[in-house]
Amino acid sequence: MNYHKVFFKPGDILVEVAEGSTLKEAMNDAGLEFDFLCGGGGTCGKCRVKISEGLTTPVTREQEMLQMKELDEGIRLACMTTVHNDVTVSLPNQKKLQHNILIASDERSFQIEPQLHKVFVEVDKPSRETQNSDWCRLKESLVKRGYKDSELESTISILRQMPDVLRGSNNRITAVMYNSKVAGIEPEDTTKTMLGMAFDIGTTTIVGYLLDLYSGKELSVVSTLNPQTTFGADVISRLTFASHEENGLIKLQSAVIESINKLIIEAVEKASVTRGQIYGVSFAANTCMHHIFLGINPQSIAVAPYVPALSEPLVLDASELKISINQAGKVFMLPNIAGFVGADTVAVLLATELDRSEDIKLVIDIGTNGEIALGSREKMVACSAAAGPAFEGAQISSGMRGAVGAIDHVYYRDKLEYSVIGGGEPLGVCGSALLDTVAGLVELGIVNKRGKILAYEQLTNPVARRFKENLIQHEGQGAFVLAEASTTGHGRPIMITQSDIRELQMAKGAMAAGVRVLIETYGIQIQDIKEVLLAGAFGNYLNPHSACVIGLIPLELESKIKMIGNAAGTGSKLALLSSNEFRRSKDIAEYVKFVELGSYPRFNSIFGECTYFNIQ
Amino acid sequence: MNYHKVFFKPGDILVEVAEGSTLKEAMNDAGLEFDFLCGGGGTCGKCRVKISEGLTTPVTREQEMLQMKELDEGIRLACMTTVHNDVTVSLPNQKKLQHNILIASDERSFQIEPQLHKVFVEVDKPSRETQNSDWCRLKESLVKRGYKDSELESTISILRQMPDVLRGSNNRITAVMYNSKVAGIEPEDTTKTMLGMAFDIGTTTIVGYLLDLYSGKELSVVSTLNPQTTFGADVISRLTFASHEENGLIKLQSAVIESINKLIIEAVEKASVTRGQIYGVSFAANTCMHHIFLGINPQSIAVAPYVPALSEPLVLDASELKISINQAGKVFMLPNIAGFVGADTVAVLLATELDRSEDIKLVIDIGTNGEIALGSREKMVACSAAAGPAFEGAQISSGMRGAVGAIDHVYYRDKLEYSVIGGGEPLGVCGSALLDTVAGLVELGIVNKRGKILAYEQLTNPVARRFKENLIQHEGQGAFVLAEASTTGHGRPIMITQSDIRELQMAKGAMAAGVRVLIETYGIQIQDIKEVLLAGAFGNYLNPHSACVIGLIPLELESKIKMIGNAAGTGSKLALLSSNEFRRSKDIAEYVKFVELGSYPRFNSIFGECTYFNIQ
Repeated sequence: MNYHKVFFKPGDILVEVAEGSTLKEAMNDAGLEFDFLCGGGGTCGKCRVKISEGLTTPVTREQEMLQMKELDEGIRLACMTTVHNDVTVSLPNQKKLQHNILIASDERSFQIEPQLHKVFVEVDKPSRETQNSDWCRLKESLVKRGYKDSELESTISILRQMPDVLRGSNNRITAVMYNSKVAGIEPEDTTKTMLGMAFDIGTTTIVGYLLDLYSGKELSVVSTLNPQTTFGADVISRLTFASHEENGLIKLQSAVIESINKLIIEAVEKASVTRGQIYGVSFAANTCMHHIFLGINPQSIAVAPYVPALSEPLVLDASELKISINQAGKVFMLPNIAGFVGADTVAVLLATELDRSEDIKLVIDIGTNGEIALGSREKMVACSAAAGPAFEGAQISSGMRGAVGAIDHVYYRDKLEYSVIGGGEPLGVCGSALLDTVAGLVELGIVNKRGKILAYEQLTNPVARRFKENLIQHEGQGAFVLAEASTTGHGRPIMITQSDIRELQMAKGAMAAGVRVLIETYGIQIQDIKEVLLAGAFGNYLNPHSACVIGLIPLELESKIKMIGNAAGTGSKLALLSSNEFRRSKDIAEYVKFVELGSYPRFNSIFGECTYFNIQ
Repeated sequence: MNYHKVFFKPGDILVEVAEGSTLKEAMNDAGLEFDFLCGGGGTCGKCRVKISEGLTTPVTREQEMLQMKELDEGIRLACMTTVHNDVTVSLPNQKKLQHNILIASDERSFQIEPQLHKVFVEVDKPSRETQNSDWCRLKESLVKRGYKDSELESTISILRQMPDVLRGSNNRITAVMYNSKVAGIEPEDTTKTMLGMAFDIGTTTIVGYLLDLYSGKELSVVSTLNPQTTFGADVISRLTFASHEENGLIKLQSAVIESINKLIIEAVEKASVTRGQIYGVSFAANTCMHHIFLGINPQSIAVAPYVPALSEPLVLDASELKISINQAGKVFMLPNIAGFVGADTVAVLLATELDRSEDIKLVIDIGTNGEIALGSREKMVACSAAAGPAFEGAQISSGMRGAVGAIDHVYYRDKLEYSVIGGGEPLGVCGSALLDTVAGLVELGIVNKRGKILAYEQLTNPVARRFKENLIQHEGQGAFVLAEASTTGHGRPIMITQSDIRELQMAKGAMAAGVRVLIETYGIQIQDIKEVLLAGAFGNYLNPHSACVIGLIPLELESKIKMIGNAAGTGSKLALLSSNEFRRSKDIAEYVKFVELGSYPRFNSIFGECTYFNIQ
């Protein structure tokens, strides 16, 4: 087989790939983190790259996605273009590859009580007369420290290390205990240090917090794009990849574990500690990410009745998952609730203490699948709403994720103003700007209750008439221009089209219907809700007023909205720092009543109503 | 590097080895089981082979071991001869390579109660409304069968199989349970079959019994030479190899595990079953073999205070040791007592029920290290006597193991008569014949109490004078010829020399001293012992009268001797078939008081007295 060189600029990264590989595969090999929104299906058109040297292959399906001018300039889609000779590829904007991730945590009082304990013991010296074994003498010294002999357990790996560790340290060792199990043994007294890492594996991003397990102090925070995005942007495309591609599950699992291990290295380097000092890692994730991380085929989640293989919390040896921490290290997996209400939701509930609240609260984590929970210490209900990827900028004509270059907020002043993430020329709109734009259009009467963009002539609000220039016809439909071609980073205009508004209506309709069904199921009125907690990256970026204007959240609740940041990460930390909190996560998962929207009576009509906008 | 062909006859086995390899290495590569008594050190001279074609390399140290006539015929030592061109090698006697292993079991009544249980369940179908996970529903069905929900455990491997197994079998599955742990899941109802294998890993041989775990029925028996003999004949040379050779421990462990896996295949083929039907394997072994099998460095056993790393019983997943049985399979390791009183002794005690006996019994397992136990339900004491390899034919001029061609019994009739294992011309003497020969010489007054072979002129017993022809001088010492050169398989005479008798005195003296010390420790008289149980291959072959005449066993006990065959194998079977018996093995190991002979007061003088023969 022939191999060709692919040279990526900026960054000057050179890889060799087999004849016929796609540029997407070459970017993978090069370790470039790039967000293939449609998973490489050639349908989102977001993976534009420029071939600056070398022959290109004939254009096929790409033609639909690219303009003639772009083709002339050598712009191609990385997922559709194959390599047949040495080429040099310019990436659109290296900064775009960096991700803007929300890292915030809520303060919450709890008792630190780590899952693992360290016990320093001086083991009796071996005796020729009794010839008591190493393990027998170690047990005796642990019994003196309060452990029960009949409950003490070991592993073959510990037994293999024991003779050398005991003799190398003059019988002075530290036992790392997980309940009554000796998880590790170390020479001398190492009881002073015990670190852990709490992770939140999102579909898009992975965040890790390095913590001191004694003080709870956060030593460093690291994050990265979930490398699985290469195989598909959303949960459904990953489920499909895991089930239908050869070794798909293993590829996805390896990618995330490799990424976790890199984050661990990064985190310990930042804090000037070592991986060997980490004894525990906890994980919050949605059910699909959870299963893939564990190497459990998630196919049953993909099809009705959407049942997970595992909901219960799980403790594993870190070595079983090839997580590179101390060899005694343990992995703590938070429990799931249902196929699309996962351990991340449980972590959010753990962090927000919904199960202990006297007041009824609504907790919303908006994403491709929005998870919604409603409840108090009396009762909790939860559901998952299939919002689709609109909030993440996918299927929106000028849409993009909340990365550098995205318009994130829009203001209707004398003229239209907007802010861009990272400053500079805009490249597209992200979900929060989509909300702002449409909310403004609704408030100005430019878009009616049913979501239709009215013609300029139909507008009655004098303020609305200021935006005459922004209202255009584009490819046979109405559109609202946010940025002219001359002001954007790629020379194409950024706009919201009628189709985009329809996409948003579907997305917000799904979320709003979920909220409505939970309220009905719970048997309360909207005004009984005392607080609305918005979790997750998107929840923290959106303008609450916009969310209420478009009816994503009931308008009555606008003043009760509180952003709580990455509550899933906070829940993951709690489970790591406190065995009591980890146990409580199990109770929460069992206690929450799952509501399956698809089976709910009248769901379709509720959804239909919820696609309307609130204000006319 | 150059490679050369080595062709072995009979058997027509061809292997290619690197330039400079020894013939021993070539034999290893060819998978030939050959007994290198000295471990390949060129000192025992037992690995004579004939180079029938091809050039031989210059003779070095071999000259000391080989006669000029042998060298002329192309006879060489396999361990000392290196390969520098293609050669054809004739092995002395292919039959000799087969081992004669004692396979016998004592009948003993016990309750069959397998360690693993199979439970057939019909798991509830998944529901879209509750989305209860696969594991949750499996637990529910097990709770209906009496298991406690809070105690049920699983493994990541089971969780990974679960979605496919459940969906592939319409939710009808068999759970393989180890206590409250789900060790395996299988589609449909497989509760009818559950097999297991009980092993006894001896220093020299490995025996395996394939059993039906429900009926206890023995389906087949297999055995092989312990492949570790290639690395050293006895425990001490293996300990040295494990500690000092690069990857020595791993080599020894891999060899025995590979061998176990071959035996498993052989056993299931004999019984027309499959490996997948085997769910449990139990192991009895001496402490060194036990540690090596588990991959635990046995070095601490080799040096004072001779302490094992592990004495306690152990249960592992078969997969952790790469034992190829059902993936749910478990390994059950019997416990050890001390560095040289191992799980094999515990197995013997389990089989003989010493701990339940009203009468005081003496149990002896004779080998390089003889294990001796004395006791009853009141009290048990045990020790290990370093007899050395004389009983196994090593360090005896004409000695060999109890294999085909060995003289195994000697009778002083009108003339000297003997029997040969497998018939045919004799090749050497094994331990039991050594005992017979010397016992006869002692009874006839040819050898005195102190072990000296008297000159013909000194003999007073008229019967003794019949054997004038047998009494010769050999290399400056007295010797007793058993077979003239013309009657043996290799054309060399077979004899017992004065040095051989000295070796036997050391060996039997060690054993007899061990018995004496145990009796003293226990605080009884010899006549209080009601039964003497001889375990193991050698114990089953020896003539009890000879053993008593030479004082290996006190003469007063001759009528109380009973051979109990491979009691260690029987104990291993019991531990496999009954969780109760396995638990009892732990009690036995803790209950037995270990007596360390080296620390015993007056041990040297007791040993000195015990080297004498009983009758003059």
